[in-house]
Formats: sequence, C-alpha cells, structure tokens
Amino acid sequence: MGKPLKYAVFGGGSWATAIVKMLCENLDEVGWYMRSVYTKEHILREQHNPNYLSSVEFHLEQLKLSNDINEIAAWADVLFFVIPSAFIHDELEKLTVNISNKTIVSAVKGIMPESGLLVGEHFHEFYNLPYENIAVIAGPCHAEEVALERLSYLTISCSNTNKAKEIAKALSSEYINTKVSDDVIGIEYAVMLKNIYAIAAGIAHGLGYGDNFQSVLMSNSIREMNRFIKKRHKMKRNINNSAYLGDLLVTGYSTFSRNRLFGNMIGKGYTVKSAQMEMNMVAEGYYATKSAHQLYERNNKRTRIPIINAVYSILYEGKNPKKVFKKLTEKLN
Amino acid sequence: MGKPLKYAVFGGGSWATAIVKMLCENLDEVGWYMRSVYTKEHILREQHNPNYLSSVEFHLEQLKLSNDINEIAAWADVLFFVIPSAFIHDELEKLTVNISNKTIVSAVKGIMPESGLLVGEHFHEFYNLPYENIAVIAGPCHAEEVALERLSYLTISCSNTNKAKEIAKALSSEYINTKVSDDVIGIEYAVMLKNIYAIAAGIAHGLGYGDNFQSVLMSNSIREMNRFIKKRHKMKRNINNSAYLGDLLVTGYSTFSRNRLFGNMIGKGYTVKSAQMEMNMVAEGYYATKSAHQLYERNNKRTRIPIINAVYSILYEGKNPKKVFKKLTEKLN
Repeated sequence: MGKPLKYAVFGGGSWATAIVKMLCENLDEVGWYMRSVYTKEHILREQHNPNYLSSVEFHLEQLKLSNDINEIAAWADVLFFVIPSAFIHDELEKLTVNISNKTIVSAVKGIMPESGLLVGEHFHEFYNLPYENIAVIAGPCHAEEVALERLSYLTISCSNTNKAKEIAKALSSEYINTKVSDDVIGIEYAVMLKNIYAIAAGIAHGLGYGDNFQSVLMSNSIREMNRFIKKRHKMKRNINNSAYLGDLLVTGYSTFSRNRLFGNMIGKGYTVKSAQMEMNMVAEGYYATKSAHQLYERNNKRTRIPIINAVYSILYEGKNPKKVFKKLTEKLN
Repeated sequence: MGKPLKYAVFGGGSWATAIVKMLCENLDEVGWYMRSVYTKEHILREQHNPNYLSSVEFHLEQLKLSNDINEIAAWADVLFFVIPSAFIHDELEKLTVNISNKTIVSAVKGIMPESGLLVGEHFHEFYNLPYENIAVIAGPCHAEEVALERLSYLTISCSNTNKAKEIAKALSSEYINTKVSDDVIGIEYAVMLKNIYAIAAGIAHGLGYGDNFQSVLMSNSIREMNRFIKKRHKMKRNINNSAYLGDLLVTGYSTFSRNRLFGNMIGKGYTVKSAQMEMNMVAEGYYATKSAHQLYERNNKRTRIPIINAVYSILYEGKNPKKVFKKLTEKLN
C-alpha cells in the first residue's frame, strides 16, 4: 500500500458531475477538469454546476478545479474521461503530459470517430497505456438519480481485478453499489450499442408502436447486442448482467434518455438535422450508429444486426422510418 | 387436411376478450364460454364485453356464446383456457365432457393452487390429455393493445410443432405476429414468474427506488427466472426470447400491470388485504408467489431466488417491505 491514489474527472456534463459527486463521498480531494471557464467560475462562486445536476452542492475544499487539462492530468493517478465521443479527440489533442503510467477510466459512450477504435484501444495505441491500466465504467445509471442519491449500481471493468476493485471502492457509498468485471471490451461495446437501441425504441414510440412492441424490441436488442459483441470479442459473459441488459433497459425505457428522445422525434417525422437543432445537442447514439455500422461493414464475420441496420438507414441514408420499421418488424420475433 | 378446427375461448376477462378478437380475424365462428350471464346478455345486446376492452366490437354471427362450459367444450376442437389460476379449479369442476382428444391452450398465468401442478400437467393428469395436445400461449401482450390493434407478438408453445403452427396461424393477423416454440414447461413457468417480478418492481417503486434500481431489478429477475426454470426443466432455451424476457419487461415496466400496481401499493404501505380490497381483485402474482415459493421449498435442487423469497416474505410472512428490500439490494448486482 503506497499513498492514496488521486482521482480526477475530465468533463463538465451531467455524468461527469455525477462521478465527481460519487468520488467526493470518499475522497478528500477530487480533480475536475472542464473546458468551460464560465462553468468553473460558477462552481467556485455557487458551489454547483450551472448546467447539469445543479441541485448537487459541492464543498469547494474537496475540489481541485481547472480549465487546464494538463494540470489535472499531471496531478491525478486515476483519470476518468467523461466526454462525448464526438469531442474527446479535440480534448485529447491538448494533452501533452505523459499519462502512460496512469490509470484511465473510460466513461465515454462510444467509439473514437476518427480511428474507429474503442476508447480503451485508443489510449493503448496512442498513449502507450498497458491494457491493465485501462478501465471502463458502466451503469445502469442515470446521472439525475445519482444527484437524488437514489440507489444505483455500477460495474467497473478492468483486466487487472485489483485495480477494478480499488476504483470501485472510490465510487461506492450508501447509494452506490459496485461490481467488478474483466470484460473491458464487451462492456465498452455494450455502453455504446445501448444508445442505438434507445434511438430505435424512440423511433418506435414516435411511430405509434406500443408497449407490447417495445418489449419485443428490447428482447431482440439484447440478443442482437450479444451477437455483435461475441463477434468482436469472444469470452464467457452473461449478457443479462446489469452492465449490459440493465444499462440497455434504463436507457431504452427512460423517457428522459436523450437518445430515446432523439429517436422519438425522428419517428414523429423530424429530420435528423431538425431533431438535433431542436434538442440543441447531438445524441451519442447518433455517432454510435455510424461506428457500429462501419464495424459491421468491415468485419468479415458478419452477424445479423437488423435493428442497428434499420436505425442506420434512417439516420444516414434518409430512409423513411415508417417503411424501415415495417420491414424490421418482420425480422424480429 | 380434415375439416377446419373449431376454436373456443373459456373466460370473460380482458385477455380472453383479446384472444376472441384475434381469432375472429381469421375464423368464421369462435366459441366463447363465460360464467357471467350478465356479460353474455350484454354482448348479445351491445356487441361488446361490458367489463373489459369495451371498445372492441364483435360481429355476433361470428360468436358462439354460452354460459354452459360443457356446450362449448363439446363443440370446440381447440380450447383456450383464459381463467385466473385461482378460479380455474372451480370452473373445471363443471366440466363433464370428455376432452381427452381435444387440444387445450393454456393462457392461465399460474399454477393450479390445489395441486401445485402447471396447468398443462393438470390437464395431462386429470383429463388424460397427451402432452402433444397441450399448448401454452405467451406474450409480451397487454390485452389493451390488442384492442387498439397495435402490433404485438405471441409465442405458441407445444411439443407438437405442427399443432403449434396451426394455432399460431389462427391467431396471426396484420397486428399479431406469432412464433412457435417447444418449451411448454419453461414458458408456463415464465408466464407465472414474471408476475412475481412485476410485484417486486411495484414494491420497489412504491418504496421510492428509481429507474436505475428498476433496471438492475429486471436484470436480476431474468437471471433468477432462468435459474428457476433450468432447475425445473433443463433444455436449450434462450431466456432472452420475447416469450420470457419480453413478457417480463412488458409486465414489469408497465404502469398498467395489475401486479405492478399491487406491489406499488404494498411498497407504499398498504397491507396485502387492503391493497386487494382497494383493487377489488387479486393480482395473479400473489398466488404465483406462493406457488413458486412452495416449489422452491419442496425442491432439493435449490437455487438462489432472492427476489421471489423477498416478495414471499412480504406478502405471506408480514415482513416489512422497506427492510426486506434493503436486504435484497445487497444480494443483487
């Protein structure tokens, strides 16, 4: 046992804010990098994030806040990256500090759009991190419920089980139960794919399909996810564990999920562009759909992924949602 | 190919009414037995069931209605039993017609409380029906959505695949997709167990647990269901198929599910008695909980079923829901 590890969170969104809150339950000091100077100043003045989970009050003496990614990266031993996949590349470009001996925890819900790599693979490739220094965090966990301190379960996955346990311990509290796993790759894919299925659930709802169909869609989604992940990384896993099925359900069934909301607007007839403008943001599953589809196209060992393909053809090929879903219903069972 | 088979439905509730509607899409005449003389008279006068799915209008020339169970049983070749498990014994006591050469389809969601037998086993044992004449029907399918003609999927299970296909065909339509299976026993258990998990979901909601926990509960429920069924009847099945997981989800996530509603009241502090009085009915899962617990107690090959045991201790042993669930949360992952 050396001296206690220093933890830091990179990102200013709701999930980043929730992770900072969880770490603050256990640690004297938590590093927190965010891009926005305004947000940082607001937190220093008002003790809460102005944009997300604003009901969560922080104790400033516990926070090491900075707009300088290198300052926080140099300070911390364990780095949580909680930045949407579409922006992480730009953020990482600023990184000049050597992080090859640190531990990174990915809370990025997607694939690096530029390289098509999983976030873990990206860090391994470009930052010389050994795989045992790379972990991934999965829900099911709406950040909003962490703010309310409602009981939630997290899975921390790392090929080094002791490391996974240590990170899990730093996150555990009265309202956070944790579990460890060694299926880093499978969980990274699951976290990404669930957002595509949430978009599908939203489209179905927008088109007027009911609860009976929704549950058939989720039942088919988890089977499709299982096939997809198996082809990418074969190992013994129970796809019905909380990190896979649980996370899919909380995203697919929540009316608050941004991915489901985005899909709902598409189903109701919005174009992709107008739905994104209306939401003033891009749903993570939008990028995930493209990444998953590309992986599918590149991969020789094809498998049946009718739901991802349906969402892809609607979002990227301008196909009519009603017709695409009519055809999809015949492929489900 | 002989002459076309005659189908009849036994029961006057919402699911019975929905099945009659599905059959009417395909058949010239559908037999329909119900206990209530008032309901029968009302249908003859107003063309709809006064108590359930009253928006569904029937064509009287398609219905062979009767309050005499033996009249309909003698007439039909395929008999759908759609009666709550608590009442089916009394109804069957009236049956004097020999049905040993007919096909029965169970839509009873539970175990015969008197014998502890599955409905299929009961018919085999007491009515000399060979197993290949016994089928079971599973959702996910809220009757209310059948009334609205919203796309729904059914699974018909029978050891005789041709028979399953024939029944499936009689139910299929523009808004009903069907699938066949040969896992009669597994599906009978799944249909019964899902109602217990829906009660658990309701209790959790009533106690103030949120969506994050709900999805963990469902993820644990499907794994528990899989273990339970495996111990009773080992065969190759994908527990994530619609008849198992889909049916669990539509029941567990629906705010309209009577089992979930019952659990919700328990979680909010109602006693079992007062919740039942308030609802003016007994949720099917209430009996299922007792049956499942008894099977567990009798069975040597025990398996971990913490959710069923938690619900049992609340409903039948007067344990405090809050305390029981607090303990349960430590057993889930």
